[in-house]
Amino acid sequence: MKKSFIAACLLAGIFFADTLKAQQATWIWYPGDFEIWLANKMQNRRTERGAFFPPFWRLDNHYVLMDFHKVFDLPAAEEVTLYTEGEYNVKLDSKMLPGRPAKVTIPAGRHKLNIKVYSLDKVPAIYVKGKTVVSDSSWKVTYEDKEWIDATGMVSSQSGTQWLSAGYWHFNDPMSPPSQFRLSVEPQGPARTERKGQSMTVDFGKETFGFIKLHGLKGQGAVSIYYGESLEEAQSTTTCETLDHLEISAAAARDSVMPLSKAFRYVHLRYDKGVHIDSVSMLYEYLPVARCGSFRCSDEEINRIWDVSAYTLHLNTREFFIDGIKRDRWIWSGDAYQSFLMNYYLFFDSPSVTRTLMALRGKDPVSSHINTIMDYTFYWFLGIYDYYLYTGNETFIRQFYPRMQSLINFCLQRRNSNGLLEGLPGDWVFIDWADGLSKQGEVSFEQLLFCRSLETMALCANIAEDTQGAAKYRQLAAGLRTKIFDYYWDEDKQALVHSRINGQPTPYVTRYANMFSIFFNYLNEAQKQGVKEHVLLNDSVQQITTPYMRFYELEALCAMGEQDYVRKAIKDYWGGMLRLGATSFWEKYDPKEKGAEHYAMYGRPFGRSLCHAWGASPVYLLGKYYLGVRPTSPGYATYLAEPVLGGLQWMEGDVPTPDGNIHVYCSTQQIRIKADAGRGTLRFKSRSKPVCKGAAIEDKGNGVYEMQVAQGKLYEVSYRL
Amino acid sequence: MKKSFIAACLLAGIFFADTLKAQQATWIWYPGDFEIWLANKMQNRRTERGAFFPPFWRLDNHYVLMDFHKVFDLPAAEEVTLYTEGEYNVKLDSKMLPGRPAKVTIPAGRHKLNIKVYSLDKVPAIYVKGKTVVSDSSWKVTYEDKEWIDATGMVSSQSGTQWLSAGYWHFNDPMSPPSQFRLSVEPQGPARTERKGQSMTVDFGKETFGFIKLHGLKGQGAVSIYYGESLEEAQSTTTCETLDHLEISAAAARDSVMPLSKAFRYVHLRYDKGVHIDSVSMLYEYLPVARCGSFRCSDEEINRIWDVSAYTLHLNTREFFIDGIKRDRWIWSGDAYQSFLMNYYLFFDSPSVTRTLMALRGKDPVSSHINTIMDYTFYWFLGIYDYYLYTGNETFIRQFYPRMQSLINFCLQRRNSNGLLEGLPGDWVFIDWADGLSKQGEVSFEQLLFCRSLETMALCANIAEDTQGAAKYRQLAAGLRTKIFDYYWDEDKQALVHSRINGQPTPYVTRYANMFSIFFNYLNEAQKQGVKEHVLLNDSVQQITTPYMRFYELEALCAMGEQDYVRKAIKDYWGGMLRLGATSFWEKYDPKEKGAEHYAMYGRPFGRSLCHAWGASPVYLLGKYYLGVRPTSPGYATYLAEPVLGGLQWMEGDVPTPDGNIHVYCSTQQIRIKADAGRGTLRFKSRSKPVCKGAAIEDKGNGVYEMQVAQGKLYEVSYRL
Repeated sequence: MKKSFIAACLLAGIFFADTLKAQQATWIWYPGDFEIWLANKMQNRRTERGAFFPPFWRLDNHYVLMDFHKVFDLPAAEEVTLYTEGEYNVKLDSKMLPGRPAKVTIPAGRHKLNIKVYSLDKVPAIYVKGKTVVSDSSWKVTYEDKEWIDATGMVSSQSGTQWLSAGYWHFNDPMSPPSQFRLSVEPQGPARTERKGQSMTVDFGKETFGFIKLHGLKGQGAVSIYYGESLEEAQSTTTCETLDHLEISAAAARDSVMPLSKAFRYVHLRYDKGVHIDSVSMLYEYLPVARCGSFRCSDEEINRIWDVSAYTLHLNTREFFIDGIKRDRWIWSGDAYQSFLMNYYLFFDSPSVTRTLMALRGKDPVSSHINTIMDYTFYWFLGIYDYYLYTGNETFIRQFYPRMQSLINFCLQRRNSNGLLEGLPGDWVFIDWADGLSKQGEVSFEQLLFCRSLETMALCANIAEDTQGAAKYRQLAAGLRTKIFDYYWDEDKQALVHSRINGQPTPYVTRYANMFSIFFNYLNEAQKQGVKEHVLLNDSVQQITTPYMRFYELEALCAMGEQDYVRKAIKDYWGGMLRLGATSFWEKYDPKEKGAEHYAMYGRPFGRSLCHAWGASPVYLLGKYYLGVRPTSPGYATYLAEPVLGGLQWMEGDVPTPDGNIHVYCSTQQIRIKADAGRGTLRFKSRSKPVCKGAAIEDKGNGVYEMQVAQGKLYEVSYRL
Repeated sequence: MKKSFIAACLLAGIFFADTLKAQQATWIWYPGDFEIWLANKMQNRRTERGAFFPPFWRLDNHYVLMDFHKVFDLPAAEEVTLYTEGEYNVKLDSKMLPGRPAKVTIPAGRHKLNIKVYSLDKVPAIYVKGKTVVSDSSWKVTYEDKEWIDATGMVSSQSGTQWLSAGYWHFNDPMSPPSQFRLSVEPQGPARTERKGQSMTVDFGKETFGFIKLHGLKGQGAVSIYYGESLEEAQSTTTCETLDHLEISAAAARDSVMPLSKAFRYVHLRYDKGVHIDSVSMLYEYLPVARCGSFRCSDEEINRIWDVSAYTLHLNTREFFIDGIKRDRWIWSGDAYQSFLMNYYLFFDSPSVTRTLMALRGKDPVSSHINTIMDYTFYWFLGIYDYYLYTGNETFIRQFYPRMQSLINFCLQRRNSNGLLEGLPGDWVFIDWADGLSKQGEVSFEQLLFCRSLETMALCANIAEDTQGAAKYRQLAAGLRTKIFDYYWDEDKQALVHSRINGQPTPYVTRYANMFSIFFNYLNEAQKQGVKEHVLLNDSVQQITTPYMRFYELEALCAMGEQDYVRKAIKDYWGGMLRLGATSFWEKYDPKEKGAEHYAMYGRPFGRSLCHAWGASPVYLLGKYYLGVRPTSPGYATYLAEPVLGGLQWMEGDVPTPDGNIHVYCSTQQIRIKADAGRGTLRFKSRSKPVCKGAAIEDKGNGVYEMQVAQGKLYEVSYRL
């Protein structure tokens, strides 16, 4: 499906127009700048036992000086009100107005309005509101207008400046500028509070995130708050990962909210004798996004897994898609890539995807892989590929194409003499947390992701109308793909081997490259079956113990029609966490571990994150491979719905698209589908001839049937599984 | 001389060790970051009639997250106190300490101390003070430490990170961090105040800069302050360039200081009937740098010109070397380049040079020429060339070599198919403010500066130990130099022609390329004489009307021994401004203009700056070509003193060097020289055999004599001019 999507894009050029919200005034800025600024705020909020714990890669910054402009053609003069974040000036038809005008009258006719803003500590931004003149994404922005004047005062006519369309989000209130952005909060009480002398243990009933609030705090002395995702962690005052220490000196009782929001299910408080605390509650902090996707089925355990997955994803969907709410609270490209995919089946919140992509990419020059990790650079490209497929938004791709070019150039320049990538000083070859996994030499998995990134560049080059670039990237991708099979495919093993060292293939087979090559559609049918049998379903190949890579392993199996196997695997693995009391899904789960072993990682007893975005993949797998809905052209203009019960008796759910939902119900005898938008193809297997009132069903042979789905209409198909 | 300097550097590798101030704790940061931050502050302070007037090129920003470290080997444990600008954490031997420690004890032995700082609105900086452990330029800094950990918590051993030596200035007090930096101020009264009804005109006696202070201000109503470099400007309330409007509502009298410092000699106040003002004074604002250089001679007009030049330069030597104090108050590379050279003969304040170079360069990627001007990119390279020659500081060059490379690459990528540079969209080809000067095609002047820039790159590549780069740049420079003479040298005209258009030389001759080719030493003796006669001393070649280009015109003549001619030209041109009442030297002076015509520029009646750094060149010319002192190897390790009276009866002065002054006295019969440091060669002409007690004088033929000058010793030479 993805292959035909590329082909469609490259050949037919079927792209969607950008949707601009006209006439709605909104705060605007240079695209990517607010996102980079906000990411700095967020990623520098991590603490470890009270110590500030920032990232170890380069953090970029916004452009401090920005020019905004738009040309208006007005039937009548119009007074507009201006709001800015930063020092500013205003030019009307290139002539600077005196002072700092709060209102400007634009005369009737064709006129150009420029607003130039300088701001160091927040992103230069403007909000303009008149009767028809408003700030929105149709304004142009640049960080260098190059408007020099000659000795007579004439402005240079050919500046060579690149203007981009303004960036925006949802700041439609002039009094709530971007710099004031905060996530939403909601007061919530604990499930249980247990007091014992000068200590208190509070259980909020499930994994959560927010600001701890102490009620009726008074007296004199110290209070310590120890946070725990597990009870063990909260009570381990010397080894829990996060904490607050405060000194109280208050005669009158007052409520006190902690300054930093944190992840926890439990908090354990210890306080001096002179201190009194009435009770403890929290302000739950969250990004208000709607759950448009849904899933229900005949298996209650699967339903519970879907619910906990959705909750896990929501907790990690914040200013950006982060890895985990306790730790690292950073934006990791490999983690975010999975959140993007899950998001398309739960929130379909596109701004969260682009915010995250922009924050990850930062600015030029490229001095390191994204997050320093080679694979994570490639996931960034893959994220763009999928973003375009799911949303159809071209503006983002056109505007960020130069940053895509510089990042891929960074990779191309690091190729060795064989044209392959291997870890150079400063490159973290991550792949997965797996014991003894070799990162030496030319790892096949990295070449595979690199190849897909080059294909993405070819796609984006076409959108950006860089014909030469498109040809170049297409050729590089094709060449690399040939090499991958020449160098790594082992006919005896029926698998891609893990790596080459000193030009020689190693004898080891791991799951990584093999499972990706399936859903990248790089294998022929015989190779696919070979990989399935000799790798995916072969227990002697090192097992995966992170939900991170289980995501892809199970996706590969689903892509080969193994939904029944995958359903059992989900119940076993995610169900395994639930049976251990999980209320959100974990960074790592190894069924062989016991008790508090489950909480340890990185050499620390509570290092492991118990609420990790990559734990939420069932949301994606159930939507894409059970309800079976996925786009076949950008933005769901066309899509496939291929429901597969995989052993369930029935299932029902919604898959969101840019223009509404696709609702699917499927039992062993009936399929119902209704879509708000797009042109769909319903595909299913049936042992008898299916029937649908008012629709023609095509027999594709081998018991496979297809039916076209128009928007807005409910189809009921009778069939027999 | 410069040629032999290059040769010496390239061949012999005679470089000076860096001077580090050990044991003196000082605030440190990432080199260039404070400078870029401060430049943003300064360059966004320009106003035009109350409107904010920022630059039109890209402004960069500091890195917001910084890691500082140093390895110490301590005989005994030591407690150190930490100060930071920004949120921070501390690691001792790669292990993070809990919380935000204000003091850290480093045990005896070898230990590594890391401090990581995040700050958005000011530059991440630290100040560390212990008994022996202090923050200074021996610390290493990076914006990406890439210290990732594996699943066991082990830190990556090979990060590939580039560490630079920390940047610093003079912030030696922990309580005065870099973000608090302000220029010095000093109260000064007016020379004359004239009141008339509700207005007041205040004359401060000479061009000055600072904050206007209103004394005994009270009442109700509006006050307007109109600033003027001329009386006419201050009194032209509708066209003066800068102003302040304030609204007063104060029953009790108080003093009020204007928020923004400005340039003026006069201020004109108008205020409402309800407002009372006792008097007006100012806070003179300045950079406290000592005038180490001096000059006195038998011609009182020349002395006055030197004094006003020195004052003009000092007024424009602020946070950075700026173009003019009224306007633009920005850092322009072409203007700054001249200030650098003047500075070596007045303040010898190296930090002002490097601050300015760093601010001009900003950060990668290069998206434009410096200040958008092609020539100004090249002056930046020339500034580095001279900086190294005068100061001998290699650390700066080594640390900024990557930014030199990216800037020269930007230029190399913009060459046309002939390998020459012409203005592309976005390139301002400036050269000079001169009526009708063509900027079309391949301008010879630009190729000449480009060639010198490539030579500078070859020099710096050697210092940075980039052998391949050195060879490449040397070859590129040699090739370009050959082309310049093949393409532009006109044997009939005995000159380089101005440009080529469509591959054909144009017939026009201008002074620019020709005068630079003299002091770049690109001409043979015959060509030099040809250029002197046919261009420099030829009134039919378009005259120069800016002090900017007069700088180079007169330098070329001095370099050819025309000090007598130049003395008269200085008296004529700079003396001309003095006779018009100038108290500082101007942006432009055309003797043919009359009255207030002298104040107009850019289509505005008071657009011209009357205090422009490039007006101060006599300070340079008199020091370098009359006292005749200039370095012949980096940092004045060796130097030449070649006093030339040029028609004066006597002269006397000091030329500063990194390690003290060189004092020269010269009359027609006696030369005295005493140098604090360096090995000097005194060269002079004498019509009789000269004598100096305790020194051997070498007869070089043609009446030229040379004598070696050791440091610390006074030499008195009797001779006859």
